[in-house]
Amino acid sequence: MQGSIASLYGQILEGNFAAVARAITIVENELSGYDELLLMLKQERHARVVGITGPPGAGKSTLVNALLHYWLGENKRIAVIAVDPSSPFNYGALLGDRIRMSEYYTNPNIFIRSLATRGALGGLSAKIIEITDVVKEAPFDIVLVETVGVGQSEVEIAGLADCTIVTLVPEAGDEVQTLKAGIMEIADIFAVNKADRDGAEGLYRNLRILAHERAHGSNETQVVKTIATTGEGLAELATAIQNHLQAQENLPEKHLHLLTEKCWQLIQSWRMRDLDHHTLYQQLATAIKDGNFNLYAFARSVMTK
Amino acid sequence: MQGSIASLYGQILEGNFAAVARAITIVENELSGYDELLLMLKQERHARVVGITGPPGAGKSTLVNALLHYWLGENKRIAVIAVDPSSPFNYGALLGDRIRMSEYYTNPNIFIRSLATRGALGGLSAKIIEITDVVKEAPFDIVLVETVGVGQSEVEIAGLADCTIVTLVPEAGDEVQTLKAGIMEIADIFAVNKADRDGAEGLYRNLRILAHERAHGSNETQVVKTIATTGEGLAELATAIQNHLQAQENLPEKHLHLLTEKCWQLIQSWRMRDLDHHTLYQQLATAIKDGNFNLYAFARSVMTK
Repeated sequence: MQGSIASLYGQILEGNFAAVARAITIVENELSGYDELLLMLKQERHARVVGITGPPGAGKSTLVNALLHYWLGENKRIAVIAVDPSSPFNYGALLGDRIRMSEYYTNPNIFIRSLATRGALGGLSAKIIEITDVVKEAPFDIVLVETVGVGQSEVEIAGLADCTIVTLVPEAGDEVQTLKAGIMEIADIFAVNKADRDGAEGLYRNLRILAHERAHGSNETQVVKTIATTGEGLAELATAIQNHLQAQENLPEKHLHLLTEKCWQLIQSWRMRDLDHHTLYQQLATAIKDGNFNLYAFARSVMTK
Repeated sequence: MQGSIASLYGQILEGNFAAVARAITIVENELSGYDELLLMLKQERHARVVGITGPPGAGKSTLVNALLHYWLGENKRIAVIAVDPSSPFNYGALLGDRIRMSEYYTNPNIFIRSLATRGALGGLSAKIIEITDVVKEAPFDIVLVETVGVGQSEVEIAGLADCTIVTLVPEAGDEVQTLKAGIMEIADIFAVNKADRDGAEGLYRNLRILAHERAHGSNETQVVKTIATTGEGLAELATAIQNHLQAQENLPEKHLHLLTEKCWQLIQSWRMRDLDHHTLYQQLATAIKDGNFNLYAFARSVMTK
């Protein structure tokens, strides 16, 4: 199997889509070769990661589609990783996204993969960092990560992405005053989507004021109006992304924080690999039946076994 | 210090409130003597744990007060652990609870402690199991754990408690049809509080139908109408609790599941004690600066150090 992972990795470096897809599956499910593959990564950060987040209904998928269309015109090679809520209740929405995105499924310059979120509500897939790391080894210009912006996932995507776009729609205008402070820290660019609707101008102005108030130095969050369905504002958005990527320091501190957290989680999961809940449950039941049970002494005895 | 923890434990066994309070503080903040104290616990389960949960506004605190009043009349010794959301926005509510409960703060048969929730929204304090274990060593008849019923905390409290009361008010009537199935599994007793309000009778009937549909064997969830402010229904509720505690199998499976999860978390935190995020962050920054960085190889080298 060693040879086959090395050869898979070689194919990823060449940009073979089937190899990238297979590698994602290996990482996502921790199949044979998982550790070996991760240890092979050069992590030289050629591809830039662009994150798109925002509330449900803000038109994220349509905006992704419009950006793909724009970048294809510039001969860019793009990978899209869409993180969809895994709840069965959202299956309809997920299917909707897939259908809307499907016009690019067969384009040789665009690789698309949907991931289910696992665990925390609205959080990124626990594997998103590893998967993004794998995808970045392939010769893409841009890796686009799309996620629903609720709670923790926003912070995670900002750590993962070289440029984070927060999408809002005019209907959100009234809420902007109460936007949690966190989102201002996270957004490198605000996209006011559906900008032909009532209230777009007011939302745009409010965001610019907020961005200006919170700017430090030259790091002012950009605000761009878009109408993803017609392509209006897309060139401006793409330029803002490009400018941010070029101006950006080499390794932002937020990325270092995410790597620290990820490293912590890796070590934690490796150190717990020998324990499974089912075995623990049975040992516990036996120990209680034997009498003189103390949970903490029991845990200690299991730990040092 | 060894001697002093042993003597503290001796005082807990005698029911010294100051000792119980100090032990809780030691456990909550993992102060010196923390491990030693937990390893001393006999865990013979004299005191029974009664959990009260329910949505905000269901009158949980008033019901707790009324139950205390009732049990005092039966010469019971009771510990109350109130788990309050730690959000600063809820400080008013927390203060309100404290004031309402204060009439019993000086009663020699009632020990009261408020805990802040930490971490997950609405979840029980991560320390609640350890703290309950400590409090149960003291000669209380009942340990009452009050928590706001949102999300995960309901499942946790059901694992922790020998008897779980879910409190609802008539205004919840319309939602009962859509109550998540989980709450039926969790509730040993439903208290329809504020039973003098419109809709109480309908809620009561609906809950009884639901309880009957989902009953297996003799384990039908009891439904009791209460008016906590006047004490009406309290005798019936107390009887239902008593009956449930007496009829209950010795160690319910849900408790074993909670112990398994707690044991897992203990081992995990012990195995990670040598690592702190700050040091990891700095090692990571250095490794990246040194070049040829691979996150997974780095994590592995830290793990095996």
